[in-house]
Amino acid sequence: MIRIVFLGFGNVGYHLCNAFQKSNTVSVCQVYNRSVISLPSEVATVPFTTHLSEIVKADVYIIAIPDDAIAAFSETLSFQNKLVVHTSGSVPLTALSEKNRKGVFYPLQSFSKNSVVTFSEIPICIEAEEASDIVLLQTLGEALSEKVTVITSEERLKLHLAAVFVNNFVNHMYSISSAILEENQLPFSLLQPLIAETARKVETLTPDEAQTGPAKRNDTKTIEKHLHLLGNGSNRTVYQEITKAIQEKYNPPHGKKL
Amino acid sequence: MIRIVFLGFGNVGYHLCNAFQKSNTVSVCQVYNRSVISLPSEVATVPFTTHLSEIVKADVYIIAIPDDAIAAFSETLSFQNKLVVHTSGSVPLTALSEKNRKGVFYPLQSFSKNSVVTFSEIPICIEAEEASDIVLLQTLGEALSEKVTVITSEERLKLHLAAVFVNNFVNHMYSISSAILEENQLPFSLLQPLIAETARKVETLTPDEAQTGPAKRNDTKTIEKHLHLLGNGSNRTVYQEITKAIQEKYNPPHGKKL
Ligand SMILES: NC(=O)c1ccc[n+]([C@@H]2O[C@H](COP(=O)([O-])OP(=O)(O)OC[C@H]3O[C@@H](n4cnc5c(N)ncnc54)[C@H](OP(=O)(O)O)[C@@H]3O)[C@@H](O)[C@H]2O)c1
Ligand SMILES: NC(=O)c1ccc[n+]([C@@H]2O[C@H](COP(=O)([O-])OP(=O)(O)OC[C@H]3O[C@@H](n4cnc5c(N)ncnc54)[C@H](OP(=O)(O)O)[C@@H]3O)[C@@H](O)[C@H]2O)c1
Repeated sequence: MIRIVFLGFGNVGYHLCNAFQKSNTVSVCQVYNRSVISLPSEVATVPFTTHLSEIVKADVYIIAIPDDAIAAFSETLSFQNKLVVHTSGSVPLTALSEKNRKGVFYPLQSFSKNSVVTFSEIPICIEAEEASDIVLLQTLGEALSEKVTVITSEERLKLHLAAVFVNNFVNHMYSISSAILEENQLPFSLLQPLIAETARKVETLTPDEAQTGPAKRNDTKTIEKHLHLLGNGSNRTVYQEITKAIQEKYNPPHGKKL
Repeated sequence: MIRIVFLGFGNVGYHLCNAFQKSNTVSVCQVYNRSVISLPSEVATVPFTTHLSEIVKADVYIIAIPDDAIAAFSETLSFQNKLVVHTSGSVPLTALSEKNRKGVFYPLQSFSKNSVVTFSEIPICIEAEEASDIVLLQTLGEALSEKVTVITSEERLKLHLAAVFVNNFVNHMYSISSAILEENQLPFSLLQPLIAETARKVETLTPDEAQTGPAKRNDTKTIEKHLHLLGNGSNRTVYQEITKAIQEKYNPPHGKKL
């Protein structure tokens, strides 16, 4: 049994804890959170504390708090030489305090409190300085997922950057189109099949193969009509910059001209 | 039986024809294409011609050729007073020739030749000038889909603009992240679960509720790290503009400052 303690219990802490609770190889010994919270019923049997001094012995301590708070928080821990990991995509391993053995346990997924998560497909990116800690994190990861990968802090930051494009930025595209439809009393549900198909396509095609649309075709007539509708806000700028990027990628200047 | 003829047989012509072939209420009488093509085996029994003069009588003629060619092509048809529709999101009804009754039959989906399409969920946006033609197109649409909607040319253009954001622009986000991973010898498949979840989330949450990430949180430290990795190409500009748009939307200037 790998014994773990959660330090911080937001979205990631909750989802990891819930998933580990169902595993036979991992035991969640405790949840620490700086302020009092009531644990959801699925994990209500796990002991809880708000006192750093009461944190129990474990094999792995999982810090699951906002990126900016990780470094300072890791310094406040009163124990030493334990494996302490964070769950962030963009914080380097070295941000963690020297007092303990450092590691990373980064689940490459977007978590929200009220959505169900199936961990088996989610890549878990792990990192540690000592080989035995890598083995430990590998076993911990395999308790949840079939896709556990050892990657460096540098690679993880690039993965996180790529994740920002396919998650945060894609969602902002949804947001802009939802606003366009709302202004015109058209339901966002009209776009659902297209959203699903767009995501599904890149399971079998590369994104470059899947690219279509007025920008790719250099269809200036349609682009003009769209710009006319967009007015002068940030949606226009976003439209123009992405259109330009697509045009440059698929119709380089020495080829067909705009 | 509604008798239809396809005028042009690219992606949309093929997929519509294939779907109508399976319906009991629609009969595909003929495919016209300006150049000789061999019809795929699924639809090989449909009569084919490359001669405008040989086009047979039907209830609805479906022009499925590129947007820019629709207007001029509709003028070259030798018959009159028939219902002639196009399948475009961005071309107005009025682009069609006055010689015939005008209509639109716009399936709101992205089609590629080699992908299987399930029409039942795809919104079909119809438009026509005469009430009886609306009824005819409604019946035609219902032969394929449960979601047939009457919308105006103006609304359709807005829907098409929204579709460009959730399809073409989203796919370009996939493309950028795929390039970032490729440069670092990381497989694009690592992002698949995140891509799927991002699309799935907006089935139950609004895009605004689903928005997360460094831009939304005004996490300038992470944004700086990302910009550092992006260098000076168009990916940087795209990152900056979308980040700015998200920041302005969720952290207006009088609130938390960047
Ligand atoms: N959300 C995701 O989709 C996702 C995905 C992959 C990785 N991650 C990473 O996982 C980590 C946690 O993210 P999250 O989304 O779970 O965050 P979150 O939901 O915002 O978690 C907040 C938790 O952090 C605690 N906390 C906040 N500031 C603190 C501080 N200064 N000192 C100590 N505790 C503090 C909060 O305690 P109180 O209850 O007392 O406020 C709460 O328990 C981050 O590193 C993030 O980058 C997130
Ligand atoms: N693809 C999509 O995802 C999608 C989705 C919804 C709506 N639409 C709309 O559906 C329509 C067709 O799109 P598509 O993707 O099917 O196009 P496509 O695959 O590019 O179709 C090309 C077809 O148009 C013919 N064609 C090209 N130029 C022509 C001209 N000047 N005169 C006569 N025929 C010509 C071609 O004939 P040859 O074989 O002789 O070249 C071929 O049959 C467009 O209005 C488009 O906006 C497309």
